[in-house]
Amino acid sequence: MKIAVDAMGGDNAPQATVRGAVDAVRQYGIDVILVGRREVIEKELKEYGASDLNIEIVHCEEVVAMDEHPASAVRKKRDSSIVVATKLVKERKADAVVSAGSTGAQMAAALFYLGRISGVLRPATAIPMPTIDGVSVLLDSGANVDSEPENLIQSAAMGAIYAEAVLGIKNPKVGLLNIGEEETKGNKLAVETYQLLKNSTLNFIGNVEGKDLNFGKADVIVCDGFTGNVVLKTCEGLASAMFTLIKKGIQSSLISKIGGLLVLPSLRGLKKRLDYSEYGGVPLLGVDGISMICHGRSDARAICNAVKAGERAARQGIVEAIAKELGKQQ
Amino acid sequence: MKIAVDAMGGDNAPQATVRGAVDAVRQYGIDVILVGRREVIEKELKEYGASDLNIEIVHCEEVVAMDEHPASAVRKKRDSSIVVATKLVKERKADAVVSAGSTGAQMAAALFYLGRISGVLRPATAIPMPTIDGVSVLLDSGANVDSEPENLIQSAAMGAIYAEAVLGIKNPKVGLLNIGEEETKGNKLAVETYQLLKNSTLNFIGNVEGKDLNFGKADVIVCDGFTGNVVLKTCEGLASAMFTLIKKGIQSSLISKIGGLLVLPSLRGLKKRLDYSEYGGVPLLGVDGISMICHGRSDARAICNAVKAGERAARQGIVEAIAKELGKQQ
Repeated sequence: MKIAVDAMGGDNAPQATVRGAVDAVRQYGIDVILVGRREVIEKELKEYGASDLNIEIVHCEEVVAMDEHPASAVRKKRDSSIVVATKLVKERKADAVVSAGSTGAQMAAALFYLGRISGVLRPATAIPMPTIDGVSVLLDSGANVDSEPENLIQSAAMGAIYAEAVLGIKNPKVGLLNIGEEETKGNKLAVETYQLLKNSTLNFIGNVEGKDLNFGKADVIVCDGFTGNVVLKTCEGLASAMFTLIKKGIQSSLISKIGGLLVLPSLRGLKKRLDYSEYGGVPLLGVDGISMICHGRSDARAICNAVKAGERAARQGIVEAIAKELGKQQ
Repeated sequence: MKIAVDAMGGDNAPQATVRGAVDAVRQYGIDVILVGRREVIEKELKEYGASDLNIEIVHCEEVVAMDEHPASAVRKKRDSSIVVATKLVKERKADAVVSAGSTGAQMAAALFYLGRISGVLRPATAIPMPTIDGVSVLLDSGANVDSEPENLIQSAAMGAIYAEAVLGIKNPKVGLLNIGEEETKGNKLAVETYQLLKNSTLNFIGNVEGKDLNFGKADVIVCDGFTGNVVLKTCEGLASAMFTLIKKGIQSSLISKIGGLLVLPSLRGLKKRLDYSEYGGVPLLGVDGISMICHGRSDARAICNAVKAGERAARQGIVEAIAKELGKQQ
């Protein structure tokens, strides 16, 4: 297995990307290919004391910037790191691509160069969501903003395959994100999707509400990409607001400052649990190859975890599993 | 001003409802009418040492249960506490109704007996959302699950009136809940609504994302009722999951247990800040009268706060303000 890492993409590139890739080599023995400007990558490898690892570098000149129009940037910049890294997957020279660059450009490159798996109407992004005792997957988290019931049931099937193969959840429970428990609840999309899920071969457990998301009621939660993206970012914001308020509260008196020092180690563990980068990037499911999308703010640990998740997805053959499952539905 | 309280509605009725109403009389000098079974209410008033307050009781025999079909229960049970309390508003014998009973039944009663304000396409529920330094209002939070751009712009206008009149926010900033900052972002509904808001007389500040919700970027945030309800319940669930994990973390060692005791008072303050009941119920905006919806689990404090918010909404004339504002748009 070889994982292509876009060395130039993300707010903390090339430091975080190169170091994350190096950590994946050192910690997990995964083969990586670093894609980007050779001199930049070599300098970073040297600074990290990793020149002796002989990591393969595929040189390219260009980078897609965060503010460029994704599709046209991908069309024009054929020699950009995200395009070159994605093409390595297409040409079977790499088994997955990992990037923390422009998400739109990464999706455009995946759609353009890898294409959809036959039978897949629309790819979907599957976000790992931390729960009080594990992790669930929420999808779609933004690839499709206007979804149809057929998109949601395909998302559910792809999410279940990913949860089983990569997160190791046996026969994952699938839930529909909705605003009530009864099957008649929700908007038109939810009501129609409920019936499709009920009649599918998936392990469908019914509706789950926002309040259930972090309690692991379902392993795979499906919704349209607009709602999913809002949910994801709401969790990010609320967790951050709560940590701000906790810090402010703790600093409000000498006694609670002392108490704060004593509870700090346990609160750090909590922050880590709620940190999405802990779970190793977001797969774009439904394209003919593995493309792991990382947060623009990814640090080396997030990149390393994404490389590991990408390698596991490739090793478990999720593309083939999705092709088989969704091919049946045609 | 007189506020009708549905004494029979909610998980903790009649104790929480009667005590909350009594607290509003005692703390704020607000006139209340308790609606429900006279003997039950009188017993509760006696137990709470409030018989001498001479609170008006309007007797009725029936109660709408949480599991009844809202519209048909409201049609059939004409002598139920929610119907009788709502009719007091209709007949101008009360200035607002407060209930913690079935939300569906309360909305059905409001639509049936109060009716929509002329010019309002659909009523919307406005949820107060705690932010790190204040409170915003999110609407719609579930009254309409399939919304059109016209519904969202009306929600925005009604939310702005409520935020200014009841929450005391001058010239409130209105934001559109979306999945990116640019005006071309989002689903069809969001893209179309953006243009309507941009060309309105509201203080529109553009898109806000989920991560901005708890940071007070906007005072009034609009979205469709499905997304709003999911966001609301997601926040509820995540906050609860975080408190569970904090507690677990603190109890994991003797040292952090000691620290926990020292920080507890400041964390209690945080829990209170994030507690939706603190903000006094959710107004159903757009109906011709004031109907304050409380959480089914409301305690006396939540009921008392809702009575206070209902009284303030009536005193500030929000129904008249909405009628004036939305009448102009016709």
